[in-house]
Amino acid sequence: MEHGEHLAAIDLGSNSFHMVVARQAQGEIQILDGLSEKVQLGAGLDRENRLDEETVERALECLGRFAQRIAGIPRGSVRVVGTNTLRQARNARDFIRRAEAVLGHDIEVVAGREEARLIYLGVAHTLADDAGQRLVVDIGGGSTELIIGERFESTETESLHMGCVSFAQRFFPNGEITEKAFDRAVTAARQEVLSIHANYQRLGWQQVVGASGTIKAISLVCVENGWSEFGISMEGMKKARKRVIKAGAADKLGLKGLREDRQPIFASGLAILYGIFEQLGIEQMDVSSGALREGLLYDLLGRFGHEDVRDRSIQALMNRHHVESSQAERVCATAQTLYQQVASDWQIEGDEAADTLRWGCLLHEVGLAVSHSQFHKHGAYLVTNSDLPGFSRQEQQMVALMVRGHRRKVPLAALAELPEDEQTCLLRLCLVLRLAVRLHHARSDEKVPEIHVQATGNRLAITFPVGWLEQHPLTQADLEQELDYFQAAGYQLVLA
Amino acid sequence: MEHGEHLAAIDLGSNSFHMVVARQAQGEIQILDGLSEKVQLGAGLDRENRLDEETVERALECLGRFAQRIAGIPRGSVRVVGTNTLRQARNARDFIRRAEAVLGHDIEVVAGREEARLIYLGVAHTLADDAGQRLVVDIGGGSTELIIGERFESTETESLHMGCVSFAQRFFPNGEITEKAFDRAVTAARQEVLSIHANYQRLGWQQVVGASGTIKAISLVCVENGWSEFGISMEGMKKARKRVIKAGAADKLGLKGLREDRQPIFASGLAILYGIFEQLGIEQMDVSSGALREGLLYDLLGRFGHEDVRDRSIQALMNRHHVESSQAERVCATAQTLYQQVASDWQIEGDEAADTLRWGCLLHEVGLAVSHSQFHKHGAYLVTNSDLPGFSRQEQQMVALMVRGHRRKVPLAALAELPEDEQTCLLRLCLVLRLAVRLHHARSDEKVPEIHVQATGNRLAITFPVGWLEQHPLTQADLEQELDYFQAAGYQLVLA
Repeated sequence: MEHGEHLAAIDLGSNSFHMVVARQAQGEIQILDGLSEKVQLGAGLDRENRLDEETVERALECLGRFAQRIAGIPRGSVRVVGTNTLRQARNARDFIRRAEAVLGHDIEVVAGREEARLIYLGVAHTLADDAGQRLVVDIGGGSTELIIGERFESTETESLHMGCVSFAQRFFPNGEITEKAFDRAVTAARQEVLSIHANYQRLGWQQVVGASGTIKAISLVCVENGWSEFGISMEGMKKARKRVIKAGAADKLGLKGLREDRQPIFASGLAILYGIFEQLGIEQMDVSSGALREGLLYDLLGRFGHEDVRDRSIQALMNRHHVESSQAERVCATAQTLYQQVASDWQIEGDEAADTLRWGCLLHEVGLAVSHSQFHKHGAYLVTNSDLPGFSRQEQQMVALMVRGHRRKVPLAALAELPEDEQTCLLRLCLVLRLAVRLHHARSDEKVPEIHVQATGNRLAITFPVGWLEQHPLTQADLEQELDYFQAAGYQLVLA
Repeated sequence: MEHGEHLAAIDLGSNSFHMVVARQAQGEIQILDGLSEKVQLGAGLDRENRLDEETVERALECLGRFAQRIAGIPRGSVRVVGTNTLRQARNARDFIRRAEAVLGHDIEVVAGREEARLIYLGVAHTLADDAGQRLVVDIGGGSTELIIGERFESTETESLHMGCVSFAQRFFPNGEITEKAFDRAVTAARQEVLSIHANYQRLGWQQVVGASGTIKAISLVCVENGWSEFGISMEGMKKARKRVIKAGAADKLGLKGLREDRQPIFASGLAILYGIFEQLGIEQMDVSSGALREGLLYDLLGRFGHEDVRDRSIQALMNRHHVESSQAERVCATAQTLYQQVASDWQIEGDEAADTLRWGCLLHEVGLAVSHSQFHKHGAYLVTNSDLPGFSRQEQQMVALMVRGHRRKVPLAALAELPEDEQTCLLRLCLVLRLAVRLHHARSDEKVPEIHVQATGNRLAITFPVGWLEQHPLTQADLEQELDYFQAAGYQLVLA
């Protein structure tokens, strides 16, 4: 796979067809284009499990549009996979022949376990590389995948025969929703999960992550209505269940955060997830934007390893914007030294704080790629808006704030928007970064001398070797300016 | 000069010392750091034209701070120049010896004409490469440069012995400002200009551009107080003159937009510019951010030629953010074809519109460097906030709007903020860009067929060769989506 070459992945799902086109850029996957169409292939299966002609034609039309988009991409760089509906349809072979003729690329119908492995791969690239085990859940139109894995390896993969399209037809025909039907759907889902229950419980997990359009939609509804703080909580689902039953019909849901085209399959997806939560005793689920199609791209690229995906994301951002890494590393090293001396007194110990500081150091100059004028603000914009696989929204926001606050005024208003217990920590990390940046203003390789810093409450005293500051007048002038910035943030900086 | 190498320029001006540190990146100069200190070297000349020891020490302290910043940069990559005060001071040689010892770099005292040439070079890199002649004015602390040039060549350079520091001492001692003193200062300035008047008038110019801190300060005051629409107008200066005289003293000016440290030399700078305007019959002056120090950088780099600096700026931005130029060029070519067919009927003819369209095409995907999600918005952010030498603020805003509006909803609210006569033109250019982008959604090298477009008022009819659209279903679906976007913008798109 050469730099700049395009690649594409197509997922012929039971509810929607998805295509993503990307290119290799700076050693990373850069998404160029994403197309999704709600083909509802699964709904086109008749009683004899044959795809009806109307559905086939709808599907082929969609593929015709996809085909035009990927016309120039060579064979080996496009992967097209079919999932549950094509596993089931008795006339799948006939459909695939016609679809391949339209696409100009081979179609693989992947087994449920392979689908699960690819989903896990797609999701893993969006998560931090924690050492713990995670349970990943993906609810499709015709099947639901449950995977246990660690880092980039899935260790247990299962594909269950339930999906939001098939359950909608089975339990909520014509869109009617009753409490009885909902609970029957939940019970059916629990029964499906039962088959893997014992094994999965034995393996255990530290984190639960959901993927797929269905799960993203449930999370959006829960968060927008204030039923879950983030992701999906059991509490939030209970509230969603009540509201869905009260509405009584798919077209009367009118839920804040729910797209209209999702209405017909919302209740069925919710019931499946409800059953999974109950059966596996889940209380809280995080939501990932990764999915089968991203897994296909990474699989195509063969790029997955054991590094922390967050460090890789930071490195990719630095490369993309030509950050001068020698300067970033210098600031990093000095910030580290200062941090070690104050972390305990300032109660900013721990991996999380140290990571945030390191990332802030590495990225503080990223905004120079836009302009020198106000580059701390441009940097914060880039960090906020870039795809940083592995970072949660909140982590990303913290790093952006570090970048924003590394020079000029300390952004007190933006800090005040953080959760209260994070505010002091981030401010103090920011002050450490600022000092490190000032100490390396000269960008020279001259070693920073042994500096002693002593934190006592909101007072920070710095001691330099005798005579050093006088020999480094730029640093002295810089630090004197910094006194005022510290003061405005409620801190006293003392030079000794 | 290798990629990534740092270079620095220092201007030992009569009012302030300026340093700018930059690096070569992507074939362009990227500013890393700028330091300015108000040393007031010129004010330190005694009656015998000797720099007093107090001033010398203040200057050396400033250079000590600069020195620390550039400690690692090799000799050939730093240029330090002294100007009028060092041309005049009888003990300049002694000061230079001490200053060189502090800096570790040689100092050149440049002649007035060389100073003028370098200023012109710095200013030219911030302007569009119009064919016409321009008059550039730079008011320093001890001298004022007037240059006539075209593109990157100065054809006439003059340095006059008047500056805002020397005039402040001469006409407004102790900061007192009277009408009589002001008018005497204006007359003195006119007399200085008189010596070059005939020659400059004969050469003529199409545009007047001002540079230097003094001129930027006057422009800021005129615009902030609503006395000039942009830059500096004669009208605006008349109002400023009245207010300055009414205030009666430098420390009582209290003008909106005027920094406190500029107060002591505001009246003298204004009087000099007033005299220049009157003597040369200038009605309006544009303001450039370029200056001597930028000229030094470009001179160091040896990079100046006859290309349109705006095209170079766009190319640099594309390179910096890895824009896929093959796609940009395809869209450009098709947009051009469409534009030629509608320009007359839609009254969007002319170089300016064609340039805006071309730049919009070249940059429409620049936001992909941030993220695929909402990349039209990220692109607009990058275009708005990047340094684009040669572009006026307004031109830059127009290109940003093209990028912002090339997909998804047409940004009607943002368009409505443009001057009324520009709104329709930009919207129509934007619609042309949108169609070109849609026609190249497939990113393939397949030739776009012969398309006929016919604009009639707010109706645009497109005709494709028979059967082509049916064979290109993605394009068809794309254009059908586009119908709605056009409609929301008050236009009717007809596919035939």
